[in-house]
Amino acid sequence: MAKRLLPTLNRILIEKIVPPSKTNAGILLPEKSSKAMVAVGPGARDKDGKTIPVCFKEGDTVLLPDYGGTQVKLGEKEYHLYRDEDILGTLHD
Amino acid sequence: MAKRLLPTLNRILIEKIVPPSKTNAGILLPEKSSKAMVAVGPGARDKDGKTIPVCFKEGDTVLLPDYGGTQVKLGEKEYHLYRDEDILGTLHD
Amino acid sequence: MAKRLLPTLNRILIEKIVPPSKTNAGILLPEKSSKAMVAVGPGARDKDGKTIPVCFKEGDTVLLPDYGGTQVKLGEKEYHLYRDEDILGTLHD
Amino acid sequence: MAKRLLPTLNRILIEKIVPPSKTNAGILLPEKSSKAMVAVGPGARDKDGKTIPVCFKEGDTVLLPDYGGTQVKLGEKEYHLYRDEDILGTLHD
Amino acid sequence: MAKRLLPTLNRILIEKIVPPSKTNAGILLPEKSSKAMVAVGPGARDKDGKTIPVCFKEGDTVLLPDYGGTQVKLGEKEYHLYRDEDILGTLHD
Amino acid sequence: MAKRLLPTLNRILIEKIVPPSKTNAGILLPEKSSKAMVAVGPGARDKDGKTIPVCFKEGDTVLLPDYGGTQVKLGEKEYHLYRDEDILGTLHD
Amino acid sequence: MAKRLLPTLNRILIEKIVPPSKTNAGILLPEKSSKAMVAVGPGARDKDGKTIPVCFKEGDTVLLPDYGGTQVKLGEKEYHLYRDEDILGTLHD
Repeated sequence: MAKRLLPTLNRILIEKIVPPSKTNAGILLPEKSSKAMVAVGPGARDKDGKTIPVCFKEGDTVLLPDYGGTQVKLGEKEYHLYRDEDILGTLHD
Repeated sequence: MAKRLLPTLNRILIEKIVPPSKTNAGILLPEKSSKAMVAVGPGARDKDGKTIPVCFKEGDTVLLPDYGGTQVKLGEKEYHLYRDEDILGTLHD
Repeated sequence: MAKRLLPTLNRILIEKIVPPSKTNAGILLPEKSSKAMVAVGPGARDKDGKTIPVCFKEGDTVLLPDYGGTQVKLGEKEYHLYRDEDILGTLHD
Repeated sequence: MAKRLLPTLNRILIEKIVPPSKTNAGILLPEKSSKAMVAVGPGARDKDGKTIPVCFKEGDTVLLPDYGGTQVKLGEKEYHLYRDEDILGTLHD
Repeated sequence: MAKRLLPTLNRILIEKIVPPSKTNAGILLPEKSSKAMVAVGPGARDKDGKTIPVCFKEGDTVLLPDYGGTQVKLGEKEYHLYRDEDILGTLHD
Repeated sequence: MAKRLLPTLNRILIEKIVPPSKTNAGILLPEKSSKAMVAVGPGARDKDGKTIPVCFKEGDTVLLPDYGGTQVKLGEKEYHLYRDEDILGTLHD
Repeated sequence: MAKRLLPTLNRILIEKIVPPSKTNAGILLPEKSSKAMVAVGPGARDKDGKTIPVCFKEGDTVLLPDYGGTQVKLGEKEYHLYRDEDILGTLHD
């Protein structure tokens, strides 16, 4: 059974979501996967030990860098951990 | 359909614009492309976690370094992400 | 006889626990080991020499990075020391 | 047509000027070019995000290091960008 | 004649002690040596020049990293100097 | 004609002086050259942008490191630029 | 004639002293040389430009690291310059 992970500091747990997508002819094609945040750490600490809140929230869809991140397996599912500062931006419709 | 990207921290989304240009003989030649800012992050954080505002605004035309930046594809269009401190200057007529 | 180790600064003493696990047929299989914290240092010091408390407590089950940590032998048992900032997150049911 | 560049942060736009020079016999020889500042950025930011003013002003003649700087072409003319901290000194008659 | 060394800053003078140890059959075997602190520096300085006291005291038994430290000979005896931040923890019965 | 150089930040302009020197037999031998400060910058900036005054003054005779420094030619004369922190000490009779 | 050197910042001028030493049979053997401080700089500067006093005084006998230091010749005598933070400790009888 998958355990729930609470990331430390400014780490963010990311799950890749492959949404269904359709061609004009009605054939389903895998669209380039978007990423959703599953869990967000409390934030890094500044030089005085105070926590700097992470500027993301659970459920945000984000653009990730091509490299980096740590692969994590919880139960059967696969996730990735990123530092908040490495996330390129948030995606909106 | 292209999603809208809100860059994080001091990242800036740049779009290359190739304006039409004319020779004396009236032939259109591609001028060296200028760059326009499409979206600007809120700014990096200082050592206390406070945000340092980015010194650019959407629509600014900028001079970019020869190297660096991260290529980003949103829908059919291609963009580049730069840190504000890596942008060399703003261009004015 | 094993001595008790009190870690310094933000070091954390980790013990790997291999819990018993059963297949459907009732055969015991070693599950991927979880990690429990045995002892937690007082915390790193900030730039003014003040202690930044460690954000873990004894008994927490944690997710560790694939690399890093220092192997430590106390009496017959084997432990690992990690810095608190290198621990990826805490695991909850 | 050359655009005007406003440098960012502590960047400084330098133009090399080759002044006319005469030998005793009246023959013009190229003197080692002096450098004039064309445009000066507002200044780098300190650790709190405040701007540290650049200690040069437009029109200053400066001594440049042998290496470094970024070549920039604006219209037909060629310039160089330097950080203010890399400029060795100002020249006076 | 051995001189007494007062370590500077956060340096700590360590002496390796090989205590006698017995097997069940009563044969003495060398146990893995424990380390005792002989002299402790006043502490490193923070960024304002204030001293950050060392979190050890003379006589503490400590766990050392496998690598690092500076070998020092005072008279006939051999010691090692470590920085306080490199010491893994204190050992207690 | 030599221009006057005002060094920036904590740079210091040094001129090597080869004073005349005599053997017991009255033969002049070149003594190892001493160095005199010709011009002193205002000082480096601290992290808040404030200037930290240079702890030398024009005319000081100094001991230089064997390596480092930037060679500078002003008119016919040759000088060297050093950072104040790289100068080993001042020499006094 | 040897000039007097006043070291800058936290540099310390060290002179190696080889004291006479006797075997039981009365033969003089060179003892491992001790080091005495000849001159002490005013101290390094902290991040605000304030001087952090050196924690040694002229005449202290010190333990030096095996590597590092800058050899300096003043007149006929040979000295070494060290940063105060590189000195391992002070020696006392």
